Amino acid sequence: MAETERRGGRRGGRARQEAGAAGWGALRHGLAGQGAFSEDAIAAMHDTALRVLEELGMRVLLDEARAILRAGGALVDEDSRMVRIGRDMVAEALRVAPRSIRLRAADPAHERIFEPGAMLFMAGSGCPNVTDRQRGRRAGSRESYRETLRLQQSFDVIHMHGPSAEPQDVPPPLRHYALMEDQLANGSKPLFVYARGRGQVEEAFEMIRLARGLDAAGFRDGVWATTVINTNSPRQIDVPMARGIIDFARAGQLSLITPFCLAGAMAPVTVAGALVLQHAEALAGIVLAQMAAPGAPVAYGGFSSNVDLKSGAPAFGTPEHIRANLGSGQLARFIGLPWRSATGAASNVADAQGATETAMALWGAVLAQATVTVHAAGWLEGGLTFGYEKFICDLEALQVMADLARPAPEDQAALAFDAIAEVPPGGHFFAAAHTMERYRTAFYAPLVADLSNHGTWLEAGAQTADARATAIWQQVLADFTPPRACDGAAGRLSRWVADRRQAGGMPPEEQ
Amino acid sequence: MAETERRGGRRGGRARQEAGAAGWGALRHGLAGQGAFSEDAIAAMHDTALRVLEELGMRVLLDEARAILRAGGALVDEDSRMVRIGRDMVAEALRVAPRSIRLRAADPAHERIFEPGAMLFMAGSGCPNVTDRQRGRRAGSRESYRETLRLQQSFDVIHMHGPSAEPQDVPPPLRHYALMEDQLANGSKPLFVYARGRGQVEEAFEMIRLARGLDAAGFRDGVWATTVINTNSPRQIDVPMARGIIDFARAGQLSLITPFCLAGAMAPVTVAGALVLQHAEALAGIVLAQMAAPGAPVAYGGFSSNVDLKSGAPAFGTPEHIRANLGSGQLARFIGLPWRSATGAASNVADAQGATETAMALWGAVLAQATVTVHAAGWLEGGLTFGYEKFICDLEALQVMADLARPAPEDQAALAFDAIAEVPPGGHFFAAAHTMERYRTAFYAPLVADLSNHGTWLEAGAQTADARATAIWQQVLADFTPPRACDGAAGRLSRWVADRRQAGGMPPEEQ
Repeated sequence: MAETERRGGRRGGRARQEAGAAGWGALRHGLAGQGAFSEDAIAAMHDTALRVLEELGMRVLLDEARAILRAGGALVDEDSRMVRIGRDMVAEALRVAPRSIRLRAADPAHERIFEPGAMLFMAGSGCPNVTDRQRGRRAGSRESYRETLRLQQSFDVIHMHGPSAEPQDVPPPLRHYALMEDQLANGSKPLFVYARGRGQVEEAFEMIRLARGLDAAGFRDGVWATTVINTNSPRQIDVPMARGIIDFARAGQLSLITPFCLAGAMAPVTVAGALVLQHAEALAGIVLAQMAAPGAPVAYGGFSSNVDLKSGAPAFGTPEHIRANLGSGQLARFIGLPWRSATGAASNVADAQGATETAMALWGAVLAQATVTVHAAGWLEGGLTFGYEKFICDLEALQVMADLARPAPEDQAALAFDAIAEVPPGGHFFAAAHTMERYRTAFYAPLVADLSNHGTWLEAGAQTADARATAIWQQVLADFTPPRACDGAAGRLSRWVADRRQAGGMPPEEQ
Repeated sequence: MAETERRGGRRGGRARQEAGAAGWGALRHGLAGQGAFSEDAIAAMHDTALRVLEELGMRVLLDEARAILRAGGALVDEDSRMVRIGRDMVAEALRVAPRSIRLRAADPAHERIFEPGAMLFMAGSGCPNVTDRQRGRRAGSRESYRETLRLQQSFDVIHMHGPSAEPQDVPPPLRHYALMEDQLANGSKPLFVYARGRGQVEEAFEMIRLARGLDAAGFRDGVWATTVINTNSPRQIDVPMARGIIDFARAGQLSLITPFCLAGAMAPVTVAGALVLQHAEALAGIVLAQMAAPGAPVAYGGFSSNVDLKSGAPAFGTPEHIRANLGSGQLARFIGLPWRSATGAASNVADAQGATETAMALWGAVLAQATVTVHAAGWLEGGLTFGYEKFICDLEALQVMADLARPAPEDQAALAFDAIAEVPPGGHFFAAAHTMERYRTAFYAPLVADLSNHGTWLEAGAQTADARATAIWQQVLADFTPPRACDGAAGRLSRWVADRRQAGGMPPEEQ
């Protein structure tokens, strides 16, 4: 039984990267959805969120956004910039928002349908720092941005690109060029674009069109770019976020509209109360998107957890976080939209704490049937640091979950009466025909888990999982070849980007 | 917000140990049960298991057990010791087996009702070795047996005692005295007794009666002792296991009848096939118990996973393991009995691998609504070693799960409209009245997780979770005082045990 085959998993060289046969690409939720609240409570949360929008309102810092909302029927106070949104506006927005969204990708095998029931994962994203066991903890750089992008590209179970590491060595007016150049040259999965102001967003869209050879209509045929919109809880939408909602909506690109409601800090201390605030803010963003462009692709976003009372840090994998995830899933099903969740860890390293936090949170997101789970691998320190080894270790849990989403054989042959009859009492099934026919693909093959006995493990250096993970990411990066679907992208961009750089770039929008 | 209170959790001194007010003692499953197979497939597994028992049979090595089964209608071949059991016998056994079992304990606050819907956890058990970061990996001793028992006693979320460490420095004919003396003097929760032959079992029962001041009727009023019966998969029940089933049944004590069916090794390579074999073997044990004493307390046991194809070791937290857990829960519900599951880890240390394995498996067991989940904390190397730090780290996941089993507030006050109205846009909820009234008990307080920021964590020594866990178990053991409910137990046993030791003890039964 020495000779085994991976079931799905990592792709080594270019040929395997593009095989696309096995693997965990297109997944749908296989487990039944769970709730944490009664149906009555979910209806009451929705209703209370509508009261928050109608009676209390949101502060919207962008003039253009307030104008759009006023035109749609909202009551606006220009002095306080408060906007009160009626439940009729919410109902209309939910009526026109799409349920099913086609995510485009350079490689058609990586295109995904983003809709309720689909199960997608995105790597830990938006981290200012990175860490690995070789080079230590440091500020994110273009090198680490590119490396982490290549890690995302190399594993099937990561379905959408995200900016794992922030390239802080690139000045802000030029950073979006770096973000897009590296994605377009190395990533054949659905792309991420930061909403950092109209100028940067429009240039990023232009780079996608150039690199992928799309005209204006082609760019609007499905979604080529996804962004995350975080409201400023409680009850505020800042300038770049409001602009992002509008610009993505008008361009037909996808906004994951995600309040980050930490119970006890930016949100009420109860999970139910935090969800009411989350729901109100997400609905406000969805209304703005649909007022800006009816039918615009949006996702409901839920990222509520509790604040740790000792440190003030966001907590992950706690009962409150899991309940918030399950409740968010219920609220998303209540309004019928696809939705975005997240896992994460507060741990500083890829140790038992970090693994437990992420695994517990992951189950919350999966049982809540999140359409996409963001920060699903590699997120340390509540998002302040992307860990290379943490990424590899977390992939194990994602791959298990992906595998579990598929139905297991349960036909007569799987019930194995004949095999049981063939093996005598006290015998073994190693050589049974039933085993020999299936063993190569019967089991999940671990990525980083080492099941050796103690003696063998000692002889191999007594490595912990994070130490073994180092060798894995190093090998993946050493083996990496950009996917064929990205061939020529850099060349198609180089002249345009050089001109823009020459002109000084495009600064991000002020908050 | 510096001053916080734990919600439940660890008990420090004697007073807190016996307070029993907060905590995670009596738990019921709060999440909906999940399945991994269709209802038709579960019915087919049950039917195929009945065919295995009727057409193929089990080899039963104990003469007395074959005689009991023959008297109950089984077809017995004495030459091969094969026993074929009819489906009528299974139906009758399932009819008379109790659904609800009262687990007695020295401390009435630790008594539990063992029935479908209840959620109990038992520590990692049956380990020949122990390991901790101070003393390294070593053979289990009486000292480590006693220490691990005290750890079990000190955490609410561990509901039943189990022999975490095997006291290998005590000779086998005397070992059961040590096992029982230490349990009876240190543990006020439901007790564990090994089924290592009639002589040892009867003496262990006698020690319970002596220490707890029970007459024969008192000992039979509910269950004072629980054992685990492992069949010798495939299709064999050895002498001490068969004897244990009979003796526990006749004494009114609880057998967790648990085949250990490793798909691809002792069981078919498919999960469905492994479950068919598990089901047949568990039903055979249940039939033997009910034939020996109708109405005897038994639990259906499921502990099926896959073998790792590289190392031949049992795998934990894999898709196959989780599916087997979910399928076992479906089979247990199909027959209506309370049931025992398990988590576990193949990892050699309390690292990210071990945490992921145990957490993934734990979710499988909980979503399968296991009545008791064995090996829920501390099990390394597939059970070859009990890890002190692994125990502490695993408690975190158990405590999260226990907390999650309770309903969250969802009334009008929890929805927090007034609090949301009170806090201005962009403000915070730290000082809101709604927060101040609730923050002390609103959130789960981590046991070992450290949510400090990177600088603080570095200053505190950059400890991984397992390193912090060392300080926790050391403190718990240093603080330990035997529970008041055990007062006098040692004294009531000493004369009797001294006499038995003097007489040379009682050897375990040969297999």
